[in-house]
Amino acid sequence: MNASQYTPEESISSIATALAPAALGIVRTSGKDCIQLLSKVFSRPKALLQAQGNTLVYGWIKDGDSRIDEVMLAVYKAPKSFTGEDMVEIFCHGGPAVVTAIQNLMLKSGFRAANRGEYTFRAFINGKTDLTKAEAVKEIIDSHTDASRSHAVGRLAGSLFEEIDSIKKLIIDTLAAIEVEIEYPEDEETIADSFDRSDLELAQKRLKSLVDSWKSEKLYQDGARVVLAGRTNAGKSSLFNAILKEERAIVSDIEGTTRDWLESWASINGIPVRLFDTAGLRQTDDVIEARGVELTKNLATDADVVLYLIDSTVGPNDDDKKFIQNCTEPLIVVYNKADKNQGGGSLAGNFEQTLSLRVPLAPKSSPENLAPVFFATPSESSSQSPIYISAKTGSGLKDLFAQITKILTEGLSAEREQAGLGSARQKAAVQEALECVEHALQNADDYTLDAVVQDLEDSLDFLGEVTGDVTPDDVLGSIFANFCVGK
Amino acid sequence: MNASQYTPEESISSIATALAPAALGIVRTSGKDCIQLLSKVFSRPKALLQAQGNTLVYGWIKDGDSRIDEVMLAVYKAPKSFTGEDMVEIFCHGGPAVVTAIQNLMLKSGFRAANRGEYTFRAFINGKTDLTKAEAVKEIIDSHTDASRSHAVGRLAGSLFEEIDSIKKLIIDTLAAIEVEIEYPEDEETIADSFDRSDLELAQKRLKSLVDSWKSEKLYQDGARVVLAGRTNAGKSSLFNAILKEERAIVSDIEGTTRDWLESWASINGIPVRLFDTAGLRQTDDVIEARGVELTKNLATDADVVLYLIDSTVGPNDDDKKFIQNCTEPLIVVYNKADKNQGGGSLAGNFEQTLSLRVPLAPKSSPENLAPVFFATPSESSSQSPIYISAKTGSGLKDLFAQITKILTEGLSAEREQAGLGSARQKAAVQEALECVEHALQNADDYTLDAVVQDLEDSLDFLGEVTGDVTPDDVLGSIFANFCVGK
Repeated sequence: MNASQYTPEESISSIATALAPAALGIVRTSGKDCIQLLSKVFSRPKALLQAQGNTLVYGWIKDGDSRIDEVMLAVYKAPKSFTGEDMVEIFCHGGPAVVTAIQNLMLKSGFRAANRGEYTFRAFINGKTDLTKAEAVKEIIDSHTDASRSHAVGRLAGSLFEEIDSIKKLIIDTLAAIEVEIEYPEDEETIADSFDRSDLELAQKRLKSLVDSWKSEKLYQDGARVVLAGRTNAGKSSLFNAILKEERAIVSDIEGTTRDWLESWASINGIPVRLFDTAGLRQTDDVIEARGVELTKNLATDADVVLYLIDSTVGPNDDDKKFIQNCTEPLIVVYNKADKNQGGGSLAGNFEQTLSLRVPLAPKSSPENLAPVFFATPSESSSQSPIYISAKTGSGLKDLFAQITKILTEGLSAEREQAGLGSARQKAAVQEALECVEHALQNADDYTLDAVVQDLEDSLDFLGEVTGDVTPDDVLGSIFANFCVGK
Repeated sequence: MNASQYTPEESISSIATALAPAALGIVRTSGKDCIQLLSKVFSRPKALLQAQGNTLVYGWIKDGDSRIDEVMLAVYKAPKSFTGEDMVEIFCHGGPAVVTAIQNLMLKSGFRAANRGEYTFRAFINGKTDLTKAEAVKEIIDSHTDASRSHAVGRLAGSLFEEIDSIKKLIIDTLAAIEVEIEYPEDEETIADSFDRSDLELAQKRLKSLVDSWKSEKLYQDGARVVLAGRTNAGKSSLFNAILKEERAIVSDIEGTTRDWLESWASINGIPVRLFDTAGLRQTDDVIEARGVELTKNLATDADVVLYLIDSTVGPNDDDKKFIQNCTEPLIVVYNKADKNQGGGSLAGNFEQTLSLRVPLAPKSSPENLAPVFFATPSESSSQSPIYISAKTGSGLKDLFAQITKILTEGLSAEREQAGLGSARQKAAVQEALECVEHALQNADDYTLDAVVQDLEDSLDFLGEVTGDVTPDDVLGSIFANFCVGK
């Protein structure tokens, strides 16, 4: 979509709630004629036509003599609506057949099916929202944990918009000072002397902090992959269920899940985590078992964290050591069944001692084969010391979560209080703005004030792209194409 | 739930839309204090407290200083609301994390989580709905096709309530006449002479028509099982997809679908049909193939209709004949790939001729083995003559649908104009009422007017159960326990 595609004379309609049986559903309409068009399929046309803005009107949606559903209509009058146009939201029963029947009737009655994100697009064109808030809406809808939602809501409330606005002011102030300087040069001092760097350096620092925030925000948006690995009977399936029970993420269903492995969203300290387990293949048949091992390896390759389970009542064997040795992703060794190992975790203890004594545990293995498993990356092994848990009682899960969180957030900016970026698009634009400001600071030392002015104007353009003051049409198109219909 | 469990002093809250990413979501609240309680977590408490009924108030849901979401509140004042109590519906963003966060905040703020169907239960207790309309709400939400929805909407609009009411009037008029007769007996005439049967016979006829309607209504509610069977490469998978493409039902996902077979809802002339195919097992491996055949047989055992596919370019073989012979459920032989069989369907033609000539088609088979396949149930075979289709081009599908519909609706009352029953509970009560009326008509011939009076009063009680005028508490409980939360 681009600005030229804004067609307020076309009234649009779409189903705005999920298509699954539920108590209530919403069909949303917007546009110059939407109240007029709706009145023709409503049992109380006069009540609807005379309704004031922000009121609710009771009645039936009707297709000729045939009743479709008993509804409440929420009536909004321009410009006091989400889109800034006249709007009617139809609150109906939540059956998929009902909302579909109503939407089909709308399309028969002069409405056009709304494009993805078209309501928010219209809101943007009508000055009801800027792009940071518009993108936050999509983020909120897609958020997997409450922490993710909370980050997005900050942006919807304007935290990012205000931060960008405040940085722009710093740059504009600098620009104004420079333009006075150019207009009325006091003397032949060097640029460096006449140029007040403090505002620009503050802008640089705050832009950098925004750019740094993206990695962390992306983690909360997209989530991380955590893969359970380990031998049959180590308790992978129990741990999988224990984690879900402890911290189930908001959206648990993942499309395309096959029977080859289990996967589910979990919330690890508010971070959305896609948890993988090959539990479905844990069978006695050797062929299938081998396939399971292969699958686990493939899944582990893309993992952000691998949890390698060992039954602490049995202890590690060569297979365990080989897997741990060959795993190139961050890995946490997890001793399960700590509740059963009443002897003080002796086997696991031996394992650790083995580690510190550099003596192989299993007699079958040669020391040469074993050594690299435990000592290949001593710097890493310190941060990934084994965790003792009981998937059965839940003991040790908190430590495990802390360890996972530590790995996932390593090197990320931790200050959640400040504004953060909400999309890769925003990050790209802020990064460009930062580079312009850095270039300006460098120019101020080396070149002319005119070059600095050009840099600062460029940086303002890039910041304008973030909020939508200055936005190429193709950017607009790609932003709204990612929205769901009805938003 | 029963009447004593109505606690208007408790304000209730629940998520009323499906928990999946969508543009909008609704959290619904009801109860004496709901506006007061909500004002404590709303950014504009004064605007909310002063809002009139049937208006919308804009603002933020806040947990202390933390913003949860930007929302519109729909405010309803008792008794002008769905439940008859004060109500507020929170229209928020549709992300599962958002609606969950809001619902959790409600529970922290003095609301109790609503039980299943508790809103409708409160509406019923407050006289805002009768039981036929309440049950229609659940039906509408669950309906799989537009035809199913349309039947339920009729009941929501009062068609069943009015029909029951009108039948009750006929019985009450008869009762009144009888009571005059008992009070002031004119002479010693026999009961049969003094008793005007016409009203009661009309009531009997209309009750019977209601009872008869249930089988058809149940079909539109629950749907029918249609199983695709046939050899590998007969085109089962193509037909499965062609039927879905032609007439996809409103809800297509079925819980618990495994990889052993495919299943999906389809709409066959408005009848919701659960379509089964064992396509997932169509592999060359003999063991797996055998399992597929076994599965098809098991699925076919519970089928309302079996579609047996034969590749018309190849023709039937012994396996086909054996399956058809052994199938105890209604079966339609479907010749697929009619588009490829340019020679006028010769092989299929031979098959039919075989049938009429009573000559075995395949030389390998003995006539003894073959004969029962084709001639076991001649009366049925006439209504189930083979259908020629092309799953590829879609030709013949209309005929196939007509044949399926014919089998599914055989013996069902066809008049859709009149009121129909919406639940097994209603059917049981109307059946009882009918038996009372029939008994009364019989008593009128044989016994005393007092016995007739008793019968008619019983029948009125049963009809009162249908609408909820007279309803044992346990009936109420079981009705609302089947509702979804938020309704």
